[in-house]
Amino acid sequence: MFDFTFHNPTKIIFGAGMEALIGAELNAAEIKKVLLVYGRNSVIKSGLLERVLASLKASNITCSQYGGVDSNPLISHTREGVALARREKVEAILAVGGGSVLDESKAIAVGALTEEDVWDFFVGKEVTRALPVFTILTLAATGSEMNGNSVVTNAETRQKYNIASPHVYPKVSILNPELTHSVPLNYTAYSAVDAIAHVIEGYFTKQPGTHLQDRLVEGIIKTVIETTDLIMAEPSHAQARASFMWTATLALNGLTPAGIGEHNFPNHMIEHALSAIYNIPHGAGLSIVMPAWMKWYVARNPSQFERFAKEIFGLDSAAAGIAALEQWFVTIKSPVRLGEVKIPATDIEAIAENAEGLARQWGIGELYTRETIAEILQLAV
Amino acid sequence: MFDFTFHNPTKIIFGAGMEALIGAELNAAEIKKVLLVYGRNSVIKSGLLERVLASLKASNITCSQYGGVDSNPLISHTREGVALARREKVEAILAVGGGSVLDESKAIAVGALTEEDVWDFFVGKEVTRALPVFTILTLAATGSEMNGNSVVTNAETRQKYNIASPHVYPKVSILNPELTHSVPLNYTAYSAVDAIAHVIEGYFTKQPGTHLQDRLVEGIIKTVIETTDLIMAEPSHAQARASFMWTATLALNGLTPAGIGEHNFPNHMIEHALSAIYNIPHGAGLSIVMPAWMKWYVARNPSQFERFAKEIFGLDSAAAGIAALEQWFVTIKSPVRLGEVKIPATDIEAIAENAEGLARQWGIGELYTRETIAEILQLAV
Repeated sequence: MFDFTFHNPTKIIFGAGMEALIGAELNAAEIKKVLLVYGRNSVIKSGLLERVLASLKASNITCSQYGGVDSNPLISHTREGVALARREKVEAILAVGGGSVLDESKAIAVGALTEEDVWDFFVGKEVTRALPVFTILTLAATGSEMNGNSVVTNAETRQKYNIASPHVYPKVSILNPELTHSVPLNYTAYSAVDAIAHVIEGYFTKQPGTHLQDRLVEGIIKTVIETTDLIMAEPSHAQARASFMWTATLALNGLTPAGIGEHNFPNHMIEHALSAIYNIPHGAGLSIVMPAWMKWYVARNPSQFERFAKEIFGLDSAAAGIAALEQWFVTIKSPVRLGEVKIPATDIEAIAENAEGLARQWGIGELYTRETIAEILQLAV
Repeated sequence: MFDFTFHNPTKIIFGAGMEALIGAELNAAEIKKVLLVYGRNSVIKSGLLERVLASLKASNITCSQYGGVDSNPLISHTREGVALARREKVEAILAVGGGSVLDESKAIAVGALTEEDVWDFFVGKEVTRALPVFTILTLAATGSEMNGNSVVTNAETRQKYNIASPHVYPKVSILNPELTHSVPLNYTAYSAVDAIAHVIEGYFTKQPGTHLQDRLVEGIIKTVIETTDLIMAEPSHAQARASFMWTATLALNGLTPAGIGEHNFPNHMIEHALSAIYNIPHGAGLSIVMPAWMKWYVARNPSQFERFAKEIFGLDSAAAGIAALEQWFVTIKSPVRLGEVKIPATDIEAIAENAEGLARQWGIGELYTRETIAEILQLAV
């Protein structure tokens, strides 16, 4: 165990139909005007937007709408959102969507209270305040509903960078698992990969010996695998969708790293480079990077990989555990090789160059150089 | 999975020497005057009180002191604390001690903002506000440092009752595991029993099928057993003490019951009656009640008891799992029979009568009547 601070003030309201409570929650926070941020038409078609607007109206909360958030949200679209939030003088941001909508909403919340370019906060400037963020989640994957992270892509500079700040923890996040029943199976698979990626980064890169946290991680991974398998067989499996949703939240809400000491996020670092350049789904990138990284990293921490193999798959060797995870990605149809998403091996140098910048920003540039990142990516060819 | 709300806003600061930060934390909350509540002389002898006072002084925070909190804290002593808090017009309560000190501090925080008798809130009156509570924990067991519970005993009416309110979650809790190195081994054992009791109540009394929460509970129990065994062999085992401390916090901070739906606390209900009448340590009472309750309850939920046996002890039958837990209590020298704490079997009727009142207050009076409670206690003779 190592020293830590844990402070996660987000209120989670979990259950079918809970989006009807959003007006009351905003009222309780004395908010009268929000910017409602969403992505594409699905929230309109599903009737969700209408239900949210009805709840706001019933609580006398006025609302400007801002749609069009992309997966891998863009800083250009974020900047327009910031301008709108300022112009409309909204008091809070209400995100209705998946992780991308939540992440862009957090960035808008930061940008709305400053005269500076919001991208500055992604490349090092400290966040000191933000508008309060409320969320209604429609896709379980990123954990953004209960953490202080926001990842946004700058298409001009090809940088997929992040903010991590206590100021952007959502005040309230509403998790209605029924909203996720219609998530297509490929995106469900990417979400499962993402949740697993969130917990294995710390699990494998920390010092050994924090068994409580190991057990929490293993419980999360086992549940992700178990519930994903159920969903693949029956996409509207209510219990599996619900359990998957809460598990994905716990996978990145600060619980599993609390007390584990120094650890890092090499898989996310490499994947951010991939999706910054190719705009592939984050989870699809991760299922390509993870097995490759594991094969490259295993010799640095063999006992933890042996533990992983035994606890997750009941297998006896580190290599077998890695192979089993890779095979499971194949089973749920998430790609495991660069070729599957049409990235040629000749691009590896360019990806490694992009990732190197992030490695330096995240303080792991010593181990992760252009050369070692390319070495890892070669294992995904 | 069932609907739930999860909202735990307590900030945890974990690590050696972290009590030095208390002044800064109070300053950040703009608090200028506190009531410092503690128990017996140990916090003075150990030098902790002096370090806390130095931190307050360095931050220009004035402080009234109120010592003498008993284990199984009393409403009479709480009332005097309330009077002092009002008289001194303190802005917050700073608890320095174990679960009893924290629980009484929460009650004082509630009482200080009302003209009514603080006991009223333990017998049904709703808590609507309280002074902010800050804690420095010296004994890991009750989880009070990260929840909204307070248990206080009314010696006149022989009632050990509780408040559960979002208003008494500590704002900040400082957990320095080194402060627990000197906790005697018998109290360490009682603490281990308490932490296990906190998670098994929901685990056994909920509906089956919430596997994530089952795994979280199992991870907590395995870690409690593993770290307690290490501490018994080496009382200042720094890693084990630290891991034990954080595990005990997670055992009752709302994490494990989130999503499990209806469940109840029969072991605590019966134990509260025991320690209300006999003033035995809470954990000692629980290690007597739990095996008896399990033997009585197992037929109502056999598959979960089989799961428990397998996951925790690698055993193949429900009965073997219960026996293994009881045997482990014996190994760590926590009592498992009423006679060990000198409670005669002839007192069972009186205990059952006392517990029955609590069963009704907690809404489980249908299953737990005077007769069935006596039946359970007979299994602990």
